[in-house]
Amino acid sequence: MSAHPPILVDIKFNPEGVARVLKTAFADRGSINLADPSDRARDLREAEYALLWKPDADLFARAPNLKVIFSGGAGVDHIIGMAGLPAIPIVRFVDRSLTARMSEWVVMQCLMHLRGQYAHDSHQRRREWAKLIAPEAAEITVGVMGLGILGQDAVAKLKVMGFNVIGWSRTRKEIAGVETFDAAELDSFLGKTDILVGLLPLTPETTGFYDSGLFKKLHSYGALGRPVFINAGRGKSHVEADIVSAVRDGILGGASLDVFEAEPLGPDNPLWALENVFITPHDAAVSEENALFRHVEAQIARFERGEPLQFVVDRAVGY
Amino acid sequence: MSAHPPILVDIKFNPEGVARVLKTAFADRGSINLADPSDRARDLREAEYALLWKPDADLFARAPNLKVIFSGGAGVDHIIGMAGLPAIPIVRFVDRSLTARMSEWVVMQCLMHLRGQYAHDSHQRRREWAKLIAPEAAEITVGVMGLGILGQDAVAKLKVMGFNVIGWSRTRKEIAGVETFDAAELDSFLGKTDILVGLLPLTPETTGFYDSGLFKKLHSYGALGRPVFINAGRGKSHVEADIVSAVRDGILGGASLDVFEAEPLGPDNPLWALENVFITPHDAAVSEENALFRHVEAQIARFERGEPLQFVVDRAVGY
Ligand SMILES: NC(=O)c1ccc[n+]([C@@H]2O[C@H](COP(=O)([O-])OP(=O)(O)OC[C@H]3O[C@@H](n4cnc5c(N)ncnc54)[C@H](OP(=O)(O)O)[C@@H]3O)[C@@H](O)[C@H]2O)c1
Ligand SMILES: NC(=O)c1ccc[n+]([C@@H]2O[C@H](COP(=O)([O-])OP(=O)(O)OC[C@H]3O[C@@H](n4cnc5c(N)ncnc54)[C@H](OP(=O)(O)O)[C@@H]3O)[C@@H](O)[C@H]2O)c1
Repeated sequence: MSAHPPILVDIKFNPEGVARVLKTAFADRGSINLADPSDRARDLREAEYALLWKPDADLFARAPNLKVIFSGGAGVDHIIGMAGLPAIPIVRFVDRSLTARMSEWVVMQCLMHLRGQYAHDSHQRRREWAKLIAPEAAEITVGVMGLGILGQDAVAKLKVMGFNVIGWSRTRKEIAGVETFDAAELDSFLGKTDILVGLLPLTPETTGFYDSGLFKKLHSYGALGRPVFINAGRGKSHVEADIVSAVRDGILGGASLDVFEAEPLGPDNPLWALENVFITPHDAAVSEENALFRHVEAQIARFERGEPLQFVVDRAVGY
Repeated sequence: MSAHPPILVDIKFNPEGVARVLKTAFADRGSINLADPSDRARDLREAEYALLWKPDADLFARAPNLKVIFSGGAGVDHIIGMAGLPAIPIVRFVDRSLTARMSEWVVMQCLMHLRGQYAHDSHQRRREWAKLIAPEAAEITVGVMGLGILGQDAVAKLKVMGFNVIGWSRTRKEIAGVETFDAAELDSFLGKTDILVGLLPLTPETTGFYDSGLFKKLHSYGALGRPVFINAGRGKSHVEADIVSAVRDGILGGASLDVFEAEPLGPDNPLWALENVFITPHDAAVSEENALFRHVEAQIARFERGEPLQFVVDRAVGY
């Protein structure tokens, strides 16, 4: 038997990819993959580290000797409320490539709204030559909510593209060239924002947060005419019925959504067909398995050398 | 009579905008706007400066005393071949805002191809939840053809977004972190390029330049599968029949076109409906009238103080 017990893996995404990359990952200790039928009934009592994404409800009962929990993604809302969650560190996934991909998505969505991509696309379908004179990015204020790993990278790239960028977070951040606001200054932040970019974690405080009342506080009569709502944090932070009515009533001029109250988004959902609303299926910034497993290995090595773990969740605030 | 004769204006775009802004522009000398019926028959012999976009064929005969010609846009192909063109300086339009807008367009088009926007949009129309795992920008090489004012700004912004960027121009440029190629090294440049961005002026050398033979030399089997062709320079630099067949035959995986052999693009043109081809109606980077007139005023002031004009076209190379 190996000196180190295997890593317990219970990841409910991309099972083929996970299985393939697991074959060569964690060479010194191996893994137990609960998605693999031959592993499913194994005794998990010796497991010390678990890598989880939406784990089974009985997982913590079956694996009572865990020392560290690793999240399979940047968010931990899929674990944090679980019954029986032990009082051990939860490490979330932070990765250069994941961050870069999220900023690609955010910048692309902001540019598509700036440059009238929906209208251009409609004209193209009708084979209609119709020049659109869009404002330039400098005339638009993008308000980024959540100035963590993802929010700060998006802010920097949006600025390079010429947007005026402002930011909001629980505790105020200092970012050169960016006006920042803390939680208490929400209304003044919203009143300046033409394009709202949501990159908040899901916590009790951010649940149902983006609603009709919030949309009405956004800057109207800006260079885009009406404000735009973009969300790539978590779907349960927004109220979909309110997005639908705000777009239909012209409170919002458009939206881009990567996350939804319930995923996958059902075929009857009215969001699919709203004007100037872009839908992506929670693929703005996927966790790449190789990078994820390397990150877990690196954190375990730190932990076993007695160094502090990185990216540990603060249970008091929930992210 | 004013000490300075009025500026001669013959601009064949946005006539309402031009007329409106002309009312307050050139306060010290006024203007003759050939788009204005009451100006159309005026004697143009005293005119010293002309601001032109696709001018009348008889313009130079009617205005034989011009000292400087200003182009209403960044390109001068609309003037350079005209009969009777006098041997005086031609100044093109260079403007921060025009450059910023072009880079918005270029970065947005590159991101839309990177992130499978066409496929996402098709899924959205079919109300289908289908995650797409795109490569990240760092896995894609964008090859920018033309490293002038527009090309260099696009290069810098594409790099910030994470793309690997290479560049090609007639004379080699030095750009930190960017592999550059000169005219003679075309084939090695093309062989590395996954997304080709065309920002070349139209000259005899660049006429019909982007054709089947060139598309076949682009990098295949890259992270996007097949190469993509993007053109915002001039339409006569590409061969539309070759774009259509290259997309249909799978030589190209997609395209984005802002410029066309004949504009406006006719409703029967097959480009409108090609898969993964984005069409915009030559509005990637419009000349904003206020900025254009300020630029002309500033250059005239330099000229009359005896300082050298900026952005003067080199007749020998044609741009
Ligand atoms: N769609 C996707 O594909 C995808 C991919 C990855 C991640 N995500 C989502 O993106 C979220 C953010 O990721 P991250 O790595 O940037 O997280 P992070 O580094 O933890 O940053 C979170 C930010 O949100 C702020 N915040 C949290 N609660 C707040 C509240 N109640 N009021 C105001 N601000 C609050 C935090 O403020 P402080 O700075 O004051 O702490 C921080 O700035 C993740 O939690 C995940 O849900 C989505
Ligand atoms: N779609 C739109 O809305 C829009 C708007 C504005 C402009 N444009 C087009 O964009 C073009 C570029 O504008 P710009 O301001 O960037 O022009 P620029 O500063 O003059 O740059 C032109 C670049 O093209 C290169 N080049 C020219 N002929 C070449 C050849 N035969 N082989 C290789 N390289 C060649 C030049 O090489 P060197 O550096 O060696 O001189 C230079 O790098 C304009 O001419 C115009 O046609 C389109």
